Amino acid sequence: MAPRSWPGVIEHYKRLLPVGDDTPRITLLEGNTPLIPSEHCHRRLGEGVRLFFKYEGVNPTCSFKDRGMTMAVSKAVEEGAQCTICASTGNTSAAAAAYSARAGIRSVVLIPDGYVALGKLAQALAYGARTIAVDGDFDDCLTLVREISDDYPVALVNSLNPYRIQGQKTAAFEVCDVLGGPPEFHALPVGNAGNITSYWLGYCEYKEQGVTDRLPHMLGFQAAGAAPIVTGERVDKPETIATAIRIGNPARWQEASAALAESDGRIEAVTDDEIVQAYRELSGEEGIFCEPASAASYAGLKKLAAEGFFAGRRCTVVATLTGHGLKDPDRAVATAPEPEKAPNDIDAVVGMLGLG
Amino acid sequence: MAPRSWPGVIEHYKRLLPVGDDTPRITLLEGNTPLIPSEHCHRRLGEGVRLFFKYEGVNPTCSFKDRGMTMAVSKAVEEGAQCTICASTGNTSAAAAAYSARAGIRSVVLIPDGYVALGKLAQALAYGARTIAVDGDFDDCLTLVREISDDYPVALVNSLNPYRIQGQKTAAFEVCDVLGGPPEFHALPVGNAGNITSYWLGYCEYKEQGVTDRLPHMLGFQAAGAAPIVTGERVDKPETIATAIRIGNPARWQEASAALAESDGRIEAVTDDEIVQAYRELSGEEGIFCEPASAASYAGLKKLAAEGFFAGRRCTVVATLTGHGLKDPDRAVATAPEPEKAPNDIDAVVGMLGLG
Repeated sequence: MAPRSWPGVIEHYKRLLPVGDDTPRITLLEGNTPLIPSEHCHRRLGEGVRLFFKYEGVNPTCSFKDRGMTMAVSKAVEEGAQCTICASTGNTSAAAAAYSARAGIRSVVLIPDGYVALGKLAQALAYGARTIAVDGDFDDCLTLVREISDDYPVALVNSLNPYRIQGQKTAAFEVCDVLGGPPEFHALPVGNAGNITSYWLGYCEYKEQGVTDRLPHMLGFQAAGAAPIVTGERVDKPETIATAIRIGNPARWQEASAALAESDGRIEAVTDDEIVQAYRELSGEEGIFCEPASAASYAGLKKLAAEGFFAGRRCTVVATLTGHGLKDPDRAVATAPEPEKAPNDIDAVVGMLGLG
Repeated sequence: MAPRSWPGVIEHYKRLLPVGDDTPRITLLEGNTPLIPSEHCHRRLGEGVRLFFKYEGVNPTCSFKDRGMTMAVSKAVEEGAQCTICASTGNTSAAAAAYSARAGIRSVVLIPDGYVALGKLAQALAYGARTIAVDGDFDDCLTLVREISDDYPVALVNSLNPYRIQGQKTAAFEVCDVLGGPPEFHALPVGNAGNITSYWLGYCEYKEQGVTDRLPHMLGFQAAGAAPIVTGERVDKPETIATAIRIGNPARWQEASAALAESDGRIEAVTDDEIVQAYRELSGEEGIFCEPASAASYAGLKKLAAEGFFAGRRCTVVATLTGHGLKDPDRAVATAPEPEKAPNDIDAVVGMLGLG
């Protein structure tokens, strides 16, 4: 009576991942996330557009980072690491802490002292990471974790860990497996650019393997205040409410540029207002609550549509929503109207609702 | 090129649900949640115990309520409702708002004025529910939503909606489908008792249909400060940090009692301290972050184990974790140590980590 069903991304896609039979599977059964058809928002893109949302918010730690982290931590354990380390204030630290806990190894998260609200660290703390607030900025933390992982038996699980890209590419496999092939266009928020790099790798590998016979165009969207790839210039002080893509010097800049060029894709900037509007439409119309950064993919599609990009096209478009809205509940409260007040009286409430 | 894969609980289990071909499927592709094998915590229960966690936190609104709400809202739309209504401050309002948004109908949530922190309503607000703070207590809100749904074309989606039990029973089907049969024991947190009622219904129906050939024993666990079924007496002022099961007079008391009797099961109380300890073990050892209330199931299993309940038994045990820990991030922060401080100096950090 062995359990059947989805075994997590490593076991399911092991033939296309750098793992052997002896590589431990440190898994929380991540992946296999829903590809939700748009019920309402697709109308804003054009009549011929079939739109799907790849909803990565329903991974175990509520973001796409779990795909990369199951690989990174499994390989770390295979290589004998007793500890993982990263500098992160968000989704990466949550995933690193969760998979390290699962593996029974230590997890260390470095953050700049005084810069990070404790609520942002709730997940890393819950999963038992040891968090250290360094008297320095984020770059100082990055330098420290690199040096420590170079000199000690500690696995670096920041963006530069190559196994994370390997794990994250499985999302492209899943899209193809569900649709029966790649979409014509795949839209993504772009921060560090690891995800667009990963999807492109996944799509290319499926084509090389003969699983699919063509490739999508990659559409990347950055926040206007943190759009180095769009402008071609590093941003020293990136600013956007979409914290998960608030990055001025992407770790995977070169790979993202290659993906855009090779796929004949596009990269554009969307404003915070456009992101918030998209975020509210996704939850209020589709019933899909995502992180603000996630909404950049749909915001960008709307922008392209307004420029006539989809006019006359019949095509399938997938937009990845990278994380769950519960990652940033304060934003939901801040962008919604406050509750109305009513007396304890049925006629009054019925009147307010326009039912009477 | 039609999308394949998991279609949501209604379409997947339609033969065992009160739906017809014409019933709309208002779905966010809920269900099909992972049954995660315990890596570490099972050791506390006994050598012969094989333990799995049914992790309902990775549903679209991050709780098991989505299973019932896809049914309730689909039937509401089938019956012509233009609006749903509920009195709820937690997971029910989130699910009601999400599925109503998806259906393109209005959602109204009544809350007692001054009683509910805005953060608890973040999801309902995000999904565009109209929230009304009534000058009264929670019972007043319940009375109002019942009366309004009796007199107007508004669908009541509170616990008493019978379709919610129907949708929620699919979790038992999934457990059997993955394990190849029911477990020997199924552990659940018990608040309003809708979930234990639903699981028992699901297990019984699978046996009646000949899909399985036996039934599990149901194990229910209430918080000590809100344990009316355990004590046999309604609790006027229920108190527990596990807000999702802080209920003094369960709506499904009778059905839960029947499930416990028919399954030769057990119901016990666990203290808040036991719940918090279990909650920390689940995230810190298994890498599974759940709501405090969810941890009552595992806390209860530990309590039974300490009494020798599992001694000498070889058995499979499933514990349902009803909601994601991100529903209550403040609890995670409150129960974890604060970040440590370090200078921007590699030797100092290495020393703190005991690596030097």
